[in-house]
Amino acid sequence: MSAPAKLPTEPKSLRVGCIGGGQLGRMMALEAPRLNIQMSFLDPSGENCPAAAVAGKTSTVLKGGLNDENMLRELAKSCDVVTCEIEHIGTDVLEKMEQEGVNVQPSGRVVKIIQDKFAQKEHFAKHGIPLPPYVNIPSADAIRDAASKFGLPLMLKSRLGAYDGRGNAVLKDTSDTSISAALESLGIKSEDGKDLPLYAEGWINFHSEVAVMVVRSSNGETSAYPAVTAIQTDSICRVVLAPARGVPIELRQKCEDIASKAIKALGDGASGVFGVELFIAENDGKLDVLLNEVAPRPHNTGHYTQDACAVSQFENHLRAVCGLPLGDTNLAVGAAAMVNVLGAKSGTVEDTMKGSNAALSMSRATVHWYGKEGCRAGRKMGHINLTADSHGELDKSLSELLKLEDISESVIPGGLGSSPLVGIIMGSQSDLPTMQAAVEIMKEFNIPYEVDIVSAHRTPDKLCSYSRSAASRGLQVIIAGAGGAAHLPGMVAAMTPLPVVGVPIKTSTLNGQDSLLSIVQMPRGIPVATVAIGNAMNAGLLAVRSLCGSRPELRQKMEAYQVEMKRKVDQMSESLTALGSDKFLDGMENKSTAVNV
Amino acid sequence: MSAPAKLPTEPKSLRVGCIGGGQLGRMMALEAPRLNIQMSFLDPSGENCPAAAVAGKTSTVLKGGLNDENMLRELAKSCDVVTCEIEHIGTDVLEKMEQEGVNVQPSGRVVKIIQDKFAQKEHFAKHGIPLPPYVNIPSADAIRDAASKFGLPLMLKSRLGAYDGRGNAVLKDTSDTSISAALESLGIKSEDGKDLPLYAEGWINFHSEVAVMVVRSSNGETSAYPAVTAIQTDSICRVVLAPARGVPIELRQKCEDIASKAIKALGDGASGVFGVELFIAENDGKLDVLLNEVAPRPHNTGHYTQDACAVSQFENHLRAVCGLPLGDTNLAVGAAAMVNVLGAKSGTVEDTMKGSNAALSMSRATVHWYGKEGCRAGRKMGHINLTADSHGELDKSLSELLKLEDISESVIPGGLGSSPLVGIIMGSQSDLPTMQAAVEIMKEFNIPYEVDIVSAHRTPDKLCSYSRSAASRGLQVIIAGAGGAAHLPGMVAAMTPLPVVGVPIKTSTLNGQDSLLSIVQMPRGIPVATVAIGNAMNAGLLAVRSLCGSRPELRQKMEAYQVEMKRKVDQMSESLTALGSDKFLDGMENKSTAVNV
Repeated sequence: MSAPAKLPTEPKSLRVGCIGGGQLGRMMALEAPRLNIQMSFLDPSGENCPAAAVAGKTSTVLKGGLNDENMLRELAKSCDVVTCEIEHIGTDVLEKMEQEGVNVQPSGRVVKIIQDKFAQKEHFAKHGIPLPPYVNIPSADAIRDAASKFGLPLMLKSRLGAYDGRGNAVLKDTSDTSISAALESLGIKSEDGKDLPLYAEGWINFHSEVAVMVVRSSNGETSAYPAVTAIQTDSICRVVLAPARGVPIELRQKCEDIASKAIKALGDGASGVFGVELFIAENDGKLDVLLNEVAPRPHNTGHYTQDACAVSQFENHLRAVCGLPLGDTNLAVGAAAMVNVLGAKSGTVEDTMKGSNAALSMSRATVHWYGKEGCRAGRKMGHINLTADSHGELDKSLSELLKLEDISESVIPGGLGSSPLVGIIMGSQSDLPTMQAAVEIMKEFNIPYEVDIVSAHRTPDKLCSYSRSAASRGLQVIIAGAGGAAHLPGMVAAMTPLPVVGVPIKTSTLNGQDSLLSIVQMPRGIPVATVAIGNAMNAGLLAVRSLCGSRPELRQKMEAYQVEMKRKVDQMSESLTALGSDKFLDGMENKSTAVNV
Repeated sequence: MSAPAKLPTEPKSLRVGCIGGGQLGRMMALEAPRLNIQMSFLDPSGENCPAAAVAGKTSTVLKGGLNDENMLRELAKSCDVVTCEIEHIGTDVLEKMEQEGVNVQPSGRVVKIIQDKFAQKEHFAKHGIPLPPYVNIPSADAIRDAASKFGLPLMLKSRLGAYDGRGNAVLKDTSDTSISAALESLGIKSEDGKDLPLYAEGWINFHSEVAVMVVRSSNGETSAYPAVTAIQTDSICRVVLAPARGVPIELRQKCEDIASKAIKALGDGASGVFGVELFIAENDGKLDVLLNEVAPRPHNTGHYTQDACAVSQFENHLRAVCGLPLGDTNLAVGAAAMVNVLGAKSGTVEDTMKGSNAALSMSRATVHWYGKEGCRAGRKMGHINLTADSHGELDKSLSELLKLEDISESVIPGGLGSSPLVGIIMGSQSDLPTMQAAVEIMKEFNIPYEVDIVSAHRTPDKLCSYSRSAASRGLQVIIAGAGGAAHLPGMVAAMTPLPVVGVPIKTSTLNGQDSLLSIVQMPRGIPVATVAIGNAMNAGLLAVRSLCGSRPELRQKMEAYQVEMKRKVDQMSESLTALGSDKFLDGMENKSTAVNV
């Protein structure tokens, strides 16, 4: 391990040259000045590229092809480190330059492995990374072999130059016409004596797609951002949800582990941020993780890090390629969503900006516009990040944005509004009249909640699945009501890390004393927060109080609620002193007012 | 109210010209591209100013004085809106330009009021804003009048050109030599027939300094960021703590209200971000708020917003001067700190960067380097932002940074480590052997905590002050243990919005059944989370579980804790089945192992 790296000490003394000047380069350039790093760019559009507009007056922006040897050498001349924001670049030239002493991060060798998606697969397979079944397709005949081996439908993929879904074709049958059509859609012509630049993948039972940004420093330090749900429509990334929704926490951890292992397996020169796309496959109800593909650069599925993490993927990419210590990759917020802004169908800028303009007025929303010259339907023009304390609290803004961006709500795993913060459960429907008081508190404080019947003794399997999945579904508190041998709250508490509030239901035999003692007398290690017999209202208030910790506005509401309680008692007191106790009591009997429990 | 404003629709079509190109302009420029805003600058250093390095290749950077009519007109020519990042600018020229139709935000009139700190005071006094006592000092004689009116020490302040503490002098006596020395330190010479550019302020019983960033759109929409503690040493801002520490929530609210009222009182043309500095004065133990002064631009005390809020003061300044909807001004994190990086005493860049380099490896830390050419002792070279879920969780990193930045820990109100998350209290020292189990859990999960004796019946005043101040001191959960007529937990719950966990202490007369029922049977409206008799360990675990909501890492720790519990029981089970019950029991008796409560 080399000595700890330090920030460059003279203004502009660390110069990073980036191959490509699109939105990814632009967003790197916006982070670089804080770290005393100056960026230069090589892009076919030269000074018209998105990065040029933010590159700073003294930086170099070169116009040229990304595999043009002269221009790559020109870029390297003005820089201390050369990196890239796109993988379709001249890796042979880069490897030559590296031999001559140029500092290229990630190295040409690593980018080359990733460029050829079949070579990528072979590399990862060799290192024990789980992959969907795949096979090389050197000839049209091999397609039929693959179909008989993996079954239909079969996924045909271009080895080179794939981007945003271009380069994939689904083959539904193996007729000559279907095969020709697939090859044509991939732009591939069979030339005599030449291998097809193609491979095939077996169909998997797709549950969802997950992405993990892995950052690896040129000195070997590696860190992974949390696994997120990546949602594509027409093979283009549209929405990202962080952390991944509807994916159990162990599986998220597994995604992060596999992603980190894959990047480490790329070996020396694997530095910078890597976008790792993974499939969650579902077989016989069991979920498993397979690596899809890797990009050697910041990635669309990592844009959420700009507003959800202390250090974004762009800053960490720069830190990594410069050999600086890596920054914090944990979420600094409870949940985040990213929505891509694509050029509207009409192609007009006005239509395209509807979502971004609405986002200006949303709480905890940030607009990231790429400044591209020329808007056309489907082009990535910008993105919007939302953050909140939990997924449930994101959904209102997210729903509005999906509408404006013409994205169907059905793409959200589990659907919108499926991420309640508080779960209210009870052993029997006969408990509902008591438990409804907790529901009323949720409504009053505007907290997303769910209500269900879970019986410890009659539905023990549901008890387990509910308790085990509660935290990964986004619940933050569980309120459980039960009577008699009231095992529900304690059994739930045994199977979740969440705080569980127990409501002892009043019983006809022992007036709820049985319920109370069953719920409160838990053994050491597994706590249940027990409230008074039948007092589900207090259970609701307890849930609200424990949600206040990270929600200052909710705490203010709770304080106002307490002031209001005081006001009501003051009113009673005024009325009592004014009327005297006799008259006041008459009034109470008539109205049968319950002053208190 | 005008129609809702929208983002500019063509690249670079909204151009904002900024008078001044220092670090504030630079940080605006880093936010502008996301909103499709292009910035130009006028600065005496021209292309060498900090903003120029990030201004983008096609933007204009002019070299010239900030009150040079020709240059101001030149800047306006290339822009749609003219704003400023410093108040010492040519307001007369700006007012003329406005009359000719140039869009200047904030207006010359507003900046002029603020430039002259005496005129500022007069303006705010007229609008009922609370101020320290002050008086105009047109002559040296007036100094003695002021001293006899306000008493000594007396604060003498320059009306114009004050910045970072320059322009303030403390007068301790009214001798000729002292007065001459004070005037000399302010660079003021008495010229015949000319008023002194001076005013005096009465000394106040200083508790702390608070700052509020207020943003006001050119269409009148106004929003305030939370009140923060601003800590100065040698009259230069060094540390900011958000939200303000050691200031009760009602008083923080009052600061925000007064700050918003003051900015609204500036009237039309008061647009952009305003840094409002306030004093908390302490008289007879009562705290009160007084306005100190206002800056018509983003402010050093608002830098924390870059990493602690969804929309920073810089973005909101741009939104405000362009008439776009204002962005969210709430904290998106529990707590934040900003530490200024000043040029080290040695004047070397290496020494100056010690804190920034250390921050690269701290969790949730961000380095903001200004790229100034030339480092000298005391010069503002950059700043570091820290964020966390609570003040208590910031203190470790903050302490390290204070050391590296040569700032005494004593500047932190209440001191470092004074912001525990969990308060553990009990009615009597005799409860401690039971309650210690909760303390052990805090240690195991590494949660900042405090322990104290608070008796409901013997120290009722302490009960009130403890409960009332708990939330504003940063506590997030209170664990209260009590026995017999166990009123402590419920009474605390009645006076705080925090969740209160009650531990019924086992008693000799009724085995703790009295304590249990006293604690758990709370009336509707005031919940206490009750655990089993004597089970303070579970109270600690409940506190941890409720802190997990906003702390994913803590939740992982709790999950690991539960796995470990399972492992221990599995071990017992293996041992029991291997040994058989007879032998196992022998072993237990010898070791007197307690398997469970």
